[in-house]
Parts: sequence; structure tokens; C-alpha cells
Amino acid sequence: MKLARVTGTVTATVKDTPFSAQKMLLVDIVDAQGAVLEPAVVALDVCSAGPGDLVVVTMGSAARLPTQTSGVGTDATVIAIVDEVTVDGSAVYNAP
Amino acid sequence: MKLARVTGTVTATVKDTPFSAQKMLLVDIVDAQGAVLEPAVVALDVCSAGPGDLVVVTMGSAARLPTQTSGVGTDATVIAIVDEVTVDGSAVYNAP
Amino acid sequence: MKLARVTGTVTATVKDTPFSAQKMLLVDIVDAQGAVLEPAVVALDVCSAGPGDLVVVTMGSAARLPTQTSGVGTDATVIAIVDEVTVDGSAVYNAP
Amino acid sequence: MKLARVTGTVTATVKDTPFSAQKMLLVDIVDAQGAVLEPAVVALDVCSAGPGDLVVVTMGSAARLPTQTSGVGTDATVIAIVDEVTVDGSAVYNAP
Amino acid sequence: MKLARVTGTVTATVKDTPFSAQKMLLVDIVDAQGAVLEPAVVALDVCSAGPGDLVVVTMGSAARLPTQTSGVGTDATVIAIVDEVTVDGSAVYNAP
Repeated sequence: MKLARVTGTVTATVKDTPFSAQKMLLVDIVDAQGAVLEPAVVALDVCSAGPGDLVVVTMGSAARLPTQTSGVGTDATVIAIVDEVTVDGSAVYNAP
Repeated sequence: MKLARVTGTVTATVKDTPFSAQKMLLVDIVDAQGAVLEPAVVALDVCSAGPGDLVVVTMGSAARLPTQTSGVGTDATVIAIVDEVTVDGSAVYNAP
Repeated sequence: MKLARVTGTVTATVKDTPFSAQKMLLVDIVDAQGAVLEPAVVALDVCSAGPGDLVVVTMGSAARLPTQTSGVGTDATVIAIVDEVTVDGSAVYNAP
Repeated sequence: MKLARVTGTVTATVKDTPFSAQKMLLVDIVDAQGAVLEPAVVALDVCSAGPGDLVVVTMGSAARLPTQTSGVGTDATVIAIVDEVTVDGSAVYNAP
Repeated sequence: MKLARVTGTVTATVKDTPFSAQKMLLVDIVDAQGAVLEPAVVALDVCSAGPGDLVVVTMGSAARLPTQTSGVGTDATVIAIVDEVTVDGSAVYNAP
């Protein structure tokens, strides 16, 4: 999984039917210091995350393991909202 | 998933049988501003997307979740045509 | 999926049994203009492709969807030989 | 799989239910000499690894093969704590 | 799949139980000329490959298709020891 920062949303009227009940978030994959490793991943969300949140994104078939995304053709899903990241024993991130 | 711009099409007479009823699109993976992150991905399409459309592409086994691509050996499928992308609360893309 | 140019072959006497009936092609992943994006992918082939052919390669579990590769531990299979690639409405590749 | 160095932990109160019993480690993917190849991967752990440990991480659906992570939507799991790495017949790493 | 050069071994006492009967090889992903494309992949092996061998590695769920790795949480397995690689009709590698 990867750390990611929620940056925005993607809306679509024309979409595969199982996505109709899903909100698509735009996230940047980041490191523990917040530097962007991969921009513009579109992810589903089972945590009600919002813009600015640091989250954990799971990718591949894992993205369809949560009950809410089962049967939806997603390859990326937000599965946690991060409270704290520690590196070498020190907190490098705390949720505001 | 990733944002992508539809750039063209790929046609083939000799292909694995389940692909015979499928149109193959050529897309560039892009960021929210349209910069190309990965060129030349070949994707199936369940949204009747066309050249120039900004779309959402799902990859891996997720590409075979839509009814129309079930049983077809694709690893990339267009599952939405984007209406709007917002970043930090502002629209950075609106479909023409 | 990705466009790829068939560059050669890989032969092996010692291999996992299900591969014994399979030919392994060496391909370079390319963009629509033929520039190499990723060299030296080893792929199975269900299209009887040959050196120099521009092909479509599917990756991951999709590579085992064709009847001929079912049960073989491949993660990359040639599923089409390209006739034509169009970009922005113009042909950028036509098979010779 | 990849070698990885455990650098820290990620904690979250709001997370997909199957993750509630799981500890999330932060790891850097490294080469045999310890150089970082990919930073900030979030992995589950079936080996009780701790900060500083050199471990082996498996990715994709493999991450859910261990009994402890079955049914949890992870795409990365620590499946071994490394005792020794040898390259060209010489030990390049020994666990302290 | 990818060509890879076996460079060493990884040993671990603490590991997920299904790995207990498995040897972990350290390999570098290489191109047809032997240039390293990705260092330090940890792979299981169903071919009794040894240091220096040029091999073919399959990744993802394909790594668990061989009988010997079924049920083991690997995402990379050596499935062939290369005898010869030809590019543009000429041999660029022959096993010693």
C-alpha cells in the first residue's frame, strides 16, 4: 500500500454501472514527508476521506476486498485515514 | 485508476478470439493538468469514449470486472468519461 | 495493454512443465512512434507473431485468459498483431 | 518480492474493518546494499518485524496468502525477516 | 516475464510458514545484453537455478502457478533457465 494525499475529486456521468454509487477521489501518492511519488491516482474510498487527508491506498485486486467496493472494477481504494506516521521512532506526521 | 486522454485506435485482424468484438483504444495516462505520465496504453472501452475524451482507466484484473469485458484478456479498460476534475476545491478540467 | 515490437526469442530446456509447449518471444514495449518504453519483456504468444511484428501484449493475470495459455504461469502474452495505429485521426503505423 | 528496510509505523483509527487487527509498517524497498529503490511502502506483517529490520515484502494478491492476512485488503506484506544476503558468494548483509 | 541474472541468495529463519521449504534467490532484472533494469528482486525457483544463471522470472499471481509454489505467497518465481537469446536473428546470449 502507499501513503497518499487526497487532492480532489473526479466526476463522471457516463461510467460502468457498478461505479454509479461510488465517489472517485483524486490522490497523489506521497512519501512520509509528503513529497509526491506518483501524481493523479483515481481511487474509490471506504473511509469518507476528504481533500487534504493523508490516507492509505491499496492497489490491484486488494482494492476490491472491502465490502463497499466488492464487484466494482476499481484498482485503487482508500482503506485508512492516517492518524500518525512515525519514522525512526519520531512522529513525522500527525493528523490535524 | 488513472486519468487518461484518448489519442487514437489500434486495429488488428489477427487477435485472440474474445477480442474480436472489442475496440482497442490508444490512450495516454495523464495528470490532472493533462501532462502525459505514461504514453501509449492500449485499453478496451465500456463507455463509447472517443478521441480527445478525458477518461478513467482501470488496470489489472479490474479491467475484466465490467460485464462487457468479462472473459476478455484485457489488463486496461476505460470505465468512465470524465465530466469534471477538481483539485483543492477548484475545477481544473471540465468536459467541453 | 501495451504496444510492443517483437525483437527475438528466448529458448530454455529447463523450464516449468506447462511452458514446454510454449514459444517465448522477446519484445520491447514501445509507443505509437516505435520508441522503446521498456526493453526485454518475455511474452508468450497466441497469434504466431514473428520478429519485427508490432503486437499488443497483455500483462498480469490477463496473460492467462487465452485458451492456449490457460494454466501456464505467464504474466505477459501477445494477444494481437497490429494492422494499424491511428493517432489524432491519422495513421502512424500500418503493417507492411 | 523485494528486500525492504522497516522504517516506521502508520496508525489509523478510521480504516476498513478487516485492518482493525493489523499493524501497518512503513518500509523502504532497498537493494542488497541498502540503497533505497522505492520509499514509503505501507505493509502488513506476519513476522513481528520491527524498525531497522531488513525484511522480504511480497506484493499484489500474494500479500493475502498468509493465514494472518487472508481477507484483508492488503497489497504488501512482510513475509520474512532476513538473516543473510549473499551476492556472488559473499555475505553482503548479516542480521545484527 | 523478464530476463534476470541470479546474483545471490536470501536466507531467513523467521518467515511465513509456506516459505519454509523454499529457497529465495536474489536476481537482477536485465535486458538481452545483460544491463540491469531492476536490481534486487527476491524470487522463488522451480528450476534449481544457481548464481550466474540467466533465467526467466514470472511475476504477480503467475508466480504461484507452478506446482512447487502453489499456496506460497510469492510474487516472483524463476520458471526457466535460458539456453539462448536471439535478437534480430542473431544469438546475443548462449548459456556457458
